[in-house]
Amino acid sequence: MEIISDFQDMQGRVRQWRGQGLKVVLVPTMGYFHPGHVSLMAYGRTIGERLVVSLFVNPAQFGPQEDLQRYPRDLDRDGRLAQEVGVDVLYTPEAGAMYPPGYQTYVEVGSLAQGLCGASRPGHFRGVATVVLKLLHQVEPRVAVFGEKDYQQLMVVKQMVADLDVPTEIIGRPIVREPDGLAMSSRNSYLNPEERAAALCLYRALLGARELVLSGAKRRDNILEAVRQMINSTPGTRIDHVSLVDPVTLQEVEAIDGEARLLLAVWINTTRLIDNTLLSESRLCCV
Amino acid sequence: MEIISDFQDMQGRVRQWRGQGLKVVLVPTMGYFHPGHVSLMAYGRTIGERLVVSLFVNPAQFGPQEDLQRYPRDLDRDGRLAQEVGVDVLYTPEAGAMYPPGYQTYVEVGSLAQGLCGASRPGHFRGVATVVLKLLHQVEPRVAVFGEKDYQQLMVVKQMVADLDVPTEIIGRPIVREPDGLAMSSRNSYLNPEERAAALCLYRALLGARELVLSGAKRRDNILEAVRQMINSTPGTRIDHVSLVDPVTLQEVEAIDGEARLLLAVWINTTRLIDNTLLSESRLCCV
Repeated sequence: MEIISDFQDMQGRVRQWRGQGLKVVLVPTMGYFHPGHVSLMAYGRTIGERLVVSLFVNPAQFGPQEDLQRYPRDLDRDGRLAQEVGVDVLYTPEAGAMYPPGYQTYVEVGSLAQGLCGASRPGHFRGVATVVLKLLHQVEPRVAVFGEKDYQQLMVVKQMVADLDVPTEIIGRPIVREPDGLAMSSRNSYLNPEERAAALCLYRALLGARELVLSGAKRRDNILEAVRQMINSTPGTRIDHVSLVDPVTLQEVEAIDGEARLLLAVWINTTRLIDNTLLSESRLCCV
Repeated sequence: MEIISDFQDMQGRVRQWRGQGLKVVLVPTMGYFHPGHVSLMAYGRTIGERLVVSLFVNPAQFGPQEDLQRYPRDLDRDGRLAQEVGVDVLYTPEAGAMYPPGYQTYVEVGSLAQGLCGASRPGHFRGVATVVLKLLHQVEPRVAVFGEKDYQQLMVVKQMVADLDVPTEIIGRPIVREPDGLAMSSRNSYLNPEERAAALCLYRALLGARELVLSGAKRRDNILEAVRQMINSTPGTRIDHVSLVDPVTLQEVEAIDGEARLLLAVWINTTRLIDNTLLSESRLCCV
């Protein structure tokens, strides 16, 4: 496995591959790999001939009061994990090269980016869309793979790529969970044992909502009220948002008609965690 | 020459060319070709192995009160001119395919897009940047060629491409003028004979400014005052903006230090025309 930091070097490598007709797959990450990342890489490995994993903690998607500085980093460990899964290039651009002096271009996605996490984190999806588009230009992959834990992010990226006709296919992959159900996240490393226990309320709330729907509940008010109660009954938690939305448009729905996506963002003391699941009237769906 | 309207067909053709290792050049236009367009195509022909000219009157770069509806169109004549100059594909996408229902992604360039024509035409450069990026994704050219008459547009596109790491080189080419000096523009077709005569005030003002600078003038106030007088003394004209700017940042300069760009936008009755030239302390520069 190569580790490449320089954009020109990266571009040279992917052009060489393209000249050989090889199918390049990109997995964009912010590093501090967990089994969720590894599952994306392993999937990317199966669908492409060359696999690039980008590792970039993108300043443009963090608000001024957010956790850019303390976001966990461990390049040595990340390099070992990437190598084990068969990554060809770990691409680690520098912030100063990604956003040089005078940088002034941003990608704005409309309604999909405005509610939910977009409301709690102004500018977040502008930063996400911009950096993803930059990475797609730098690596020119045929496919890029994202996790469904960041469901709104996945939908924003899909919309951007469709709207701007970017010649890359975007694929979303299922959430990977800890044995007890907590969704894998680099931010789980912020949690002390007490908070780690409290964090399970997100998964329990998703499971509870699924049970409710399986027993016939459809109306948003009923489902969200139950979800809020389950979370609020856990000490040290504060709901950021709890939303039942159309899985494609991310607009709030009044009731489940076929399928809906339940999206949670919850503060566990000073750590903000997200999780989500598909709720379906007609069939069992995994969380 | 092929005429292609469908995006998938266009993408199929350019992928075929790329597979053969051919260098593709794109000249984006809004059609109604004049010798300025033809010069861009002829230049594109010399630097590439396949030449695509896009023809799309982009709704996203017109304001609600602007001339989208009456913008001149003549596809038959454009097709003949493109064929004569050796264009391989005239790409004519439909507005409904470029901006389908639910479209919501736009590219925003910062300070470069805000003053000058960006101040007179809110949203104009957002529309330009967005459609150019879409076309670059659709055609994936190694080089795209733009005219310098739309100088701010050229600089906005260059900045966007640099900031977003788009793998296309942007080349600007000199303004082409009528024998009497009027800059070639599709909008010149709006002018009646009287207005056509009045429109020459833009070129005369650029020439006058150049004379002033050759005779030692440097300060913006002196140069712009003379330019304004030359334009205002022509009946039927109204200045939109007259600006002396740094050629790279497009920020206003107090005086010419080396080089500056003089940019004009002038209404000739109901027709808004633009023109510009480089002003240099040290050498004669063509307008």
